[in-house]
Amino acid sequence: MVYVNQGGAYERDRRYLTSRITTDGKDGYPVEPDRYRLVVSRACPWANRAIIVRRLLGLEDVISMGVAGPTHDERSWTFDLDPDGRDPVLGITHLRDAYEARVPGYERGITVPAIVDVPTGQVVTNDFPQITLDLSTQWWAYHRPGAPDLYPDALRGEIDEVNQRVYTEVNNGVYRCGFAGAQEAYEESYDRLFTALDWLSERLSRQRYLVGDTITEADVRLFTTLVRFDAVYHGHFKCNRSKLTEMPVLWAYARDLFTTPGFGDTIDFDHIKRHYYVVHRDINPTGIVPAGPALDGWLTPHGREELGGRPFGDGTPPPPPPAGEAVPPLAEQGR
Amino acid sequence: MVYVNQGGAYERDRRYLTSRITTDGKDGYPVEPDRYRLVVSRACPWANRAIIVRRLLGLEDVISMGVAGPTHDERSWTFDLDPDGRDPVLGITHLRDAYEARVPGYERGITVPAIVDVPTGQVVTNDFPQITLDLSTQWWAYHRPGAPDLYPDALRGEIDEVNQRVYTEVNNGVYRCGFAGAQEAYEESYDRLFTALDWLSERLSRQRYLVGDTITEADVRLFTTLVRFDAVYHGHFKCNRSKLTEMPVLWAYARDLFTTPGFGDTIDFDHIKRHYYVVHRDINPTGIVPAGPALDGWLTPHGREELGGRPFGDGTPPPPPPAGEAVPPLAEQGR
Repeated sequence: MVYVNQGGAYERDRRYLTSRITTDGKDGYPVEPDRYRLVVSRACPWANRAIIVRRLLGLEDVISMGVAGPTHDERSWTFDLDPDGRDPVLGITHLRDAYEARVPGYERGITVPAIVDVPTGQVVTNDFPQITLDLSTQWWAYHRPGAPDLYPDALRGEIDEVNQRVYTEVNNGVYRCGFAGAQEAYEESYDRLFTALDWLSERLSRQRYLVGDTITEADVRLFTTLVRFDAVYHGHFKCNRSKLTEMPVLWAYARDLFTTPGFGDTIDFDHIKRHYYVVHRDINPTGIVPAGPALDGWLTPHGREELGGRPFGDGTPPPPPPAGEAVPPLAEQGR
Repeated sequence: MVYVNQGGAYERDRRYLTSRITTDGKDGYPVEPDRYRLVVSRACPWANRAIIVRRLLGLEDVISMGVAGPTHDERSWTFDLDPDGRDPVLGITHLRDAYEARVPGYERGITVPAIVDVPTGQVVTNDFPQITLDLSTQWWAYHRPGAPDLYPDALRGEIDEVNQRVYTEVNNGVYRCGFAGAQEAYEESYDRLFTALDWLSERLSRQRYLVGDTITEADVRLFTTLVRFDAVYHGHFKCNRSKLTEMPVLWAYARDLFTTPGFGDTIDFDHIKRHYYVVHRDINPTGIVPAGPALDGWLTPHGREELGGRPFGDGTPPPPPPAGEAVPPLAEQGR
């Protein structure tokens, strides 16, 4: 679903289901283990945030995860990766079914991430910026020992500020480049994107992480766009002043995170490329998926330890993903 | 005009007008100053060959040049850059008119480069591989003092052999990637392209030029594809294992030639990008032209002098282009 306004500029539909799962259950959805299912696509940067945060906090055992296939039809994301094309917990073939269970005739975007209340089969929320914050601030009773504080009280103001600029200029900025319907709207988005990337390069040349000296929600949100940059945004969305690999600070920062447990082990470049290039027929009519870029650079040394900082502060990295949630080795994600 | 066969592979229509302009005039078109007009587009790599060879050999004063605009309609290349949209020498608005003057109802591709016989207004030839060879071997009486021998007798076997592989795998290989109608055909073309680029990298890591120790026809033919690589082939044609800027030997080789008089001074990145992205609506439906890539890298030192070789051998570089044929400064070709 792509919305272009009169000036040819892309506008994201931000009307979400905004019920929150909270400790106090004020919206009717209390924090409760084994009750909710996080539905994602590994292709989607917004869903990727939730996958990473769930991993970092060790919530895999209390919130299960359903993975939709990378491509989908007009009716929405499907569980075509599962046996019989049906999510084994929710028993549905299309994510749309869980939206319609909540709101009959649901007319807004069927998006991931979505958290589904398993007993009713209804989507609780697809409000992606709130989902990850709530995993940090509401589910603390179930965080693993050693889990990082991704949204520490003392840094929330700064994190929010960085996140806001990263959202408008970068996370959504690449979409504004790719879905622009007019040359002028595209060029304005391109200039804003690279202005912001230059700002981030400058900031990250002096410090290992975006805010403070450990990983936070801000790093999660920037990472999910950077990791997709060369694979899809550079070519498919025409964000092509330079590749990520040609922006030395951001490229090292992205590799640092990629090799931090909980980040790179959530990435499937095959899903990412197939989603964007197959689904967006309006900008890639042939549906042909590029064979590049070469991925081997991701595992080269990044050298950012010398900036100080400790990814998990006084905590510890998460263990490897649970069986059934591992992505293929990088070398097998090429085509 | 794009032709895709049953397997989804792109096949170039190679049925050209093949009359030759020769010293002995055996096809009715003798070498003769001020009689012929070379019609080009600065966007087109095949035409670019002829522009470069004409410059290197100093034939500007004996063969005039008409430059078609970078974009064109269904009816073919047009002289929309000229006052009143009419070529000042041929007096026509569409290159098609010169083809139809030669062959009424001409049904094959209206391509550049085309050499037109000015007195009759008829296209003599659009057989691009022969055009540049004939400029070297038939027009010698009009070469400038100090002109290089781009097709020396002793090296013709090796030049032909390199040219053949460069043509099928690289020059035309990028088109086979971009216009493939099926995933498998695309991937085969991609593999062949990068296999050939790896071979060229290896060859050029040991020698400054492709054949012998001076520039030849072989360098001209490889250059015109490499110079377009990051601007159009990488993204638009999905030749994206890596950018030219990420292939160190080829990137240095391309910069070496770019800064050699007669090569870079024929390049207009604005024309190149507008042509590919505006004309090929079948693979870029929006017609939006990317603002990137950054071009400043082209003028950085290439360091290839240390491999030996002299671009013009015992000859000399050409003087700057004549008034009216200069391209805009690189810094002004960005958008």
